[in-house]
Amino acid sequence: MTLALDTAAQDLLFREARTANTFTEDPVSDEQVQAIYDLVKYAPTAFNQSPLRIVLVRSPEARERLVRHMAEGNRPKTATAPLVAVLAADHEFHEELPRLFPKFPQAKDVFFGERPAREKAGSFNAALQVGYFIIGVRAAGLAAGPMTGFDAAGIDKEFFPEGDHSVLAVVNIGRPGVDAWQERSPRLAYEEVVTTV
Amino acid sequence: MTLALDTAAQDLLFREARTANTFTEDPVSDEQVQAIYDLVKYAPTAFNQSPLRIVLVRSPEARERLVRHMAEGNRPKTATAPLVAVLAADHEFHEELPRLFPKFPQAKDVFFGERPAREKAGSFNAALQVGYFIIGVRAAGLAAGPMTGFDAAGIDKEFFPEGDHSVLAVVNIGRPGVDAWQERSPRLAYEEVVTTV
Repeated sequence: MTLALDTAAQDLLFREARTANTFTEDPVSDEQVQAIYDLVKYAPTAFNQSPLRIVLVRSPEARERLVRHMAEGNRPKTATAPLVAVLAADHEFHEELPRLFPKFPQAKDVFFGERPAREKAGSFNAALQVGYFIIGVRAAGLAAGPMTGFDAAGIDKEFFPEGDHSVLAVVNIGRPGVDAWQERSPRLAYEEVVTTV
Repeated sequence: MTLALDTAAQDLLFREARTANTFTEDPVSDEQVQAIYDLVKYAPTAFNQSPLRIVLVRSPEARERLVRHMAEGNRPKTATAPLVAVLAADHEFHEELPRLFPKFPQAKDVFFGERPAREKAGSFNAALQVGYFIIGVRAAGLAAGPMTGFDAAGIDKEFFPEGDHSVLAVVNIGRPGVDAWQERSPRLAYEEVVTTV
């Protein structure tokens, strides 16, 4: 056993988990999303900056506003998933830094006083958190359907009109439905990805 | 039980896992890194583009070349960790797409024919994979020490002189040593991160 994680957990999170394209009608509750958040919030970001923000699209009216910014091929599943989450980087995350990183509260101004530096760090660290969130959805026994095919400027304007967030991914969440996925595509071999110097 | 993942796995990957700043001398083997890769390679990226590349810094000479590009506060731990991995986005990932995404091999040219589009997608999707990799290190029972405090241009020039990769993170890997971490910093409350529309 090279891994410490038990086989059932390996399967749940990675080996048997798949990106779902169809879902059953089983609802996804706020309690489930809270359990996911309360698990993945511990995963690391630089300076604990935690820039990810999540919008749960629950009303039919908001769902419609979202669907029209999705790429055509993503619209049917975004329209029918039990829950859709818009994941975005908050470019004003630094306002919370004195509380989030009490060891060096000056980081707020020293490293993140300028918006371009914040956008760069925030986009990367929020992307890490998108990865953690996808794993968290699977940890809840649910399937995630992460998508990046959308009009990002349209979603930002629609859901974050103040201009301080950038959408990174839209994630369909639920239990896999009929023909939820096709055959898994091949992965790169270890030797293609990992080199040693 | 709102989560399907067992409590021991929750603790191993999230609740008790911490970013380590010191390490024991126990080595990290290639077999361990391969087991980590063979687990996290299944996590999703857009079009299965899998742009993350990993350089294991094993020789003393390469370690020295890396350490001098790290921020001063990161140098001692980068110099002493049993294994250091440089994680980078490969901006020429599209070359592998016909094999990685056989459902639509034309994606290589249709979506990723232009370098700026590739850099944008590759940086985001490789960042997701950095998140998966950190979880994978923990799944191996090891502590990860991810860092973004470095001269990125310097590392790119030093380790990827062909100009087709961008470093995203440097990760120290090993078993936690003496005083490996300070008290955990607070996380944002659910209500601060998640809104419903």
